[in-house]
Amino acid sequence: MLKVKKVAIDTDPENTVFLSRQCALYRAEEFRALKRVEVSSDSQRILATLQIVDDPEIVGTDELGLGQQAFRRLKVAEGSPVKIAQATRPRSLDAVRRKIGGEVMTPAEIEEIIADISVHRYSPMEIAAFLVASAGFTTTEETLATTRAMAKTGAELKWDAPIVVDKHCIGGIPGNRTSMIVAPIVAAHGLLMPKTSSRAITSPSGTADTMEVLAKVSLSIEEMRRVVEKENVCLVWGGHVNLSPADDVLISVERPLAIDTREQMVASILSKKLAAGSTHVVIDIPVGPTAKVRSQSDAVRLRKLMEYVADELGLVIDVVFTDGAQPVGRGIGPVLEARDVMAVLHNAPEAPADLRARALLLAGRVLDFDPALRGGAGRACAQEILDSGKALAAMERIIDAQGRAAPASSPGGLTADVVAPKNGHVTAMDCFRLARIARRAGAPMDKGAGIDLFRKIGDPVKKGETLYRIHSCFSSDFEFAKAMADEDAGVTVDATHAAGSVEA
Amino acid sequence: MLKVKKVAIDTDPENTVFLSRQCALYRAEEFRALKRVEVSSDSQRILATLQIVDDPEIVGTDELGLGQQAFRRLKVAEGSPVKIAQATRPRSLDAVRRKIGGEVMTPAEIEEIIADISVHRYSPMEIAAFLVASAGFTTTEETLATTRAMAKTGAELKWDAPIVVDKHCIGGIPGNRTSMIVAPIVAAHGLLMPKTSSRAITSPSGTADTMEVLAKVSLSIEEMRRVVEKENVCLVWGGHVNLSPADDVLISVERPLAIDTREQMVASILSKKLAAGSTHVVIDIPVGPTAKVRSQSDAVRLRKLMEYVADELGLVIDVVFTDGAQPVGRGIGPVLEARDVMAVLHNAPEAPADLRARALLLAGRVLDFDPALRGGAGRACAQEILDSGKALAAMERIIDAQGRAAPASSPGGLTADVVAPKNGHVTAMDCFRLARIARRAGAPMDKGAGIDLFRKIGDPVKKGETLYRIHSCFSSDFEFAKAMADEDAGVTVDATHAAGSVEA
Repeated sequence: MLKVKKVAIDTDPENTVFLSRQCALYRAEEFRALKRVEVSSDSQRILATLQIVDDPEIVGTDELGLGQQAFRRLKVAEGSPVKIAQATRPRSLDAVRRKIGGEVMTPAEIEEIIADISVHRYSPMEIAAFLVASAGFTTTEETLATTRAMAKTGAELKWDAPIVVDKHCIGGIPGNRTSMIVAPIVAAHGLLMPKTSSRAITSPSGTADTMEVLAKVSLSIEEMRRVVEKENVCLVWGGHVNLSPADDVLISVERPLAIDTREQMVASILSKKLAAGSTHVVIDIPVGPTAKVRSQSDAVRLRKLMEYVADELGLVIDVVFTDGAQPVGRGIGPVLEARDVMAVLHNAPEAPADLRARALLLAGRVLDFDPALRGGAGRACAQEILDSGKALAAMERIIDAQGRAAPASSPGGLTADVVAPKNGHVTAMDCFRLARIARRAGAPMDKGAGIDLFRKIGDPVKKGETLYRIHSCFSSDFEFAKAMADEDAGVTVDATHAAGSVEA
Repeated sequence: MLKVKKVAIDTDPENTVFLSRQCALYRAEEFRALKRVEVSSDSQRILATLQIVDDPEIVGTDELGLGQQAFRRLKVAEGSPVKIAQATRPRSLDAVRRKIGGEVMTPAEIEEIIADISVHRYSPMEIAAFLVASAGFTTTEETLATTRAMAKTGAELKWDAPIVVDKHCIGGIPGNRTSMIVAPIVAAHGLLMPKTSSRAITSPSGTADTMEVLAKVSLSIEEMRRVVEKENVCLVWGGHVNLSPADDVLISVERPLAIDTREQMVASILSKKLAAGSTHVVIDIPVGPTAKVRSQSDAVRLRKLMEYVADELGLVIDVVFTDGAQPVGRGIGPVLEARDVMAVLHNAPEAPADLRARALLLAGRVLDFDPALRGGAGRACAQEILDSGKALAAMERIIDAQGRAAPASSPGGLTADVVAPKNGHVTAMDCFRLARIARRAGAPMDKGAGIDLFRKIGDPVKKGETLYRIHSCFSSDFEFAKAMADEDAGVTVDATHAAGSVEA
């Protein structure tokens, strides 16, 4: 038997093991062609990708090196005896192969595939095969089965309430932090909203990153439950709660492959809502030229699929199309976004009107789920809660319940203004470009880094006036972000259109 | 700039680099989501997959670790300064994405994809995406373009002869070592046949492995050319000659995914023949229940596609369907197969008749390409060359020209007989199972390991008589192989059928 050695290499999400080419017990070359091995200890078995090592400092000839993921999942101590064998392909791959050949998968096959993926029995290549075959065509029934299967793979929360609401945005629009305004409004109204959010992966901030400026967000399920019992809502990071582990694995392959299908999006979103115990969900689909959904017809197709699957799952959903032409609010990046959110909750005069209006629209739709409210009264009710300061008070209570953050993260001290190249009006903003610049400036890792927008679409601007300000905490990030903005600032100023308006 | 450090980890065929999580110059986390980076030195750029390291012994905070493949391809010394940046996706991936969406790729797109793959600009996941999308559907024109593109990626040989012949088997049948008999017959007849063969990857022996029992096979292009100029023929390992590097990369993903489409097979085979400078090729397609091609109709489809593509490329091919119901000859494994081949060339009484007959059939078809022979005279001509000992003499000259191996590798000394469980006839042999058992016994790495068949389909056998003998060189392999044969020997003995015949 080989002895386990921990190798401090992170191969997330995949299991990787390291075998010496001179291994005394196994021929490393024998595993080379297929590269997948089954590692077994007394009690545990995992599948892993094998890498061959020629350095005895990394692994000796009587050792099996386990990368960080494999080590954690095999759950044995260093030095423990383990065996390896050529991995047997997960049986569910037969269904993937038939899918590649054009067949439709049965719900049972999909359940087996998703279960195998969630416990890391598929290599990234095998996951890619499943995703690409599915991207070719996926029936509505397959999407439904995938959603069901994904919801089953992780924690499933139950709440003792007839209505458990949620609000979800499909993403892609910087600064769109409405959840942090909707949640306290819902809390003050008295509905249950156990909100889990993501951290940024390729964007400059996720709701969890922005909320973290104000409060602790890495809560366990028990802690989350205590917050919700006390305050009706929470605003926590979903990563700790493990609602759809299969989704996390799929995303790790979808992202590098830039696979972003309607079907996968529906399964990803609705499986998490189902697992979170939600019964009524408002879904925000921003539509715009640089948003995830770029046309009204694509938006309608997405809505129809979502409604069908939700219906079959017994989830009530209300899909709202919103303006995805530009960022929402002024700030992009955790601290700047948190500033906007708190300004709206404080009813401050400088609070971004678009963020407030959109949050009220969505909060109203959530409150409309309350059978006690008359149809359509949600919007007015939400506004009353916000204007009266009850939403702010609820937010303060939520922050305290989760654990208040040390005060006063401030925007990054290195600043540069990106200015208008000519007189005119702002006619377009590239959400994707602005997000990349904010990220280059250091967001979300440096909470204070990002972009502060001084102008939005339709605003007049004179040559040399500031379009937005870049904030950074470190000079190398700062230089990178400025260089990127120099190359393409992501904001279009149109002189012709401007002429009349500015003089007027 | 980071300093290059060599990390002795083999991640073939992929480029892998290792960055410390505490890196002083870059945020490792920033690269985590997409995992692909571009590494640039003064003169060279490569794309690589990034792994994050938490052990300063593996890489320090000012170092970039390069795995063996990345180190070789970046071509810089340890300690050299390098930069990294988030990789820009190869532009050709846009065509892959459209292919996933159901579009047909243009020849120019295919050329760009294959070129990128051949220089390791695609990650294994991206290669999987291309292969799976293509496995969904591939048009004949796409197959033709893929074949052309693959032939362009590596060395292209030119020969100063109007006819350059070759003979290729699609594989899957253990013991099918006809090339080693066909080639000396062709050599004696006087046609040019610069034969490159593969080593076993998942089979118990490739022609290159078996030939290596007798002669050196790792020849450079120049050495290969000298052998062919002298002896008309060579029998070398194609791996050294680099005829279709794109194919080698594709295979590294096809194999673990068990993707084996007709289109990919045609492109793989014909691209190598084109690059090798062949003009006339006999292609052997064994058909049988456990062969690669399992029905006559599949065989015909494969032949038609091959003929179409070959025609467009100006290659003359002659496709021969052969019996793929069972192994050819008696031996499975390098030494045992070489023994059979030499027995046929020596016209020894114990030489396997089926191997001799098949080699003569194929050699005849190759000689029929010679315009100097009257139509159909090839078979008789081949037999004359074999019977007269001219083929043996040619083989001895080829062996000397390539470099004769140290004599007398003998079959593995650990032996076990697998016997008939009852009286009867052998009615079926599982090629795949027998190959696995031979491989488990140690073939091809231990040249003497493998299986020696005592009975073939149709042969009568009595209970307890030997069906085949397992040969191993090491006791652990021996035990594994015996256990595997115990579980399922891969040979079916049918008692009912037997009863009549044996008594008769």
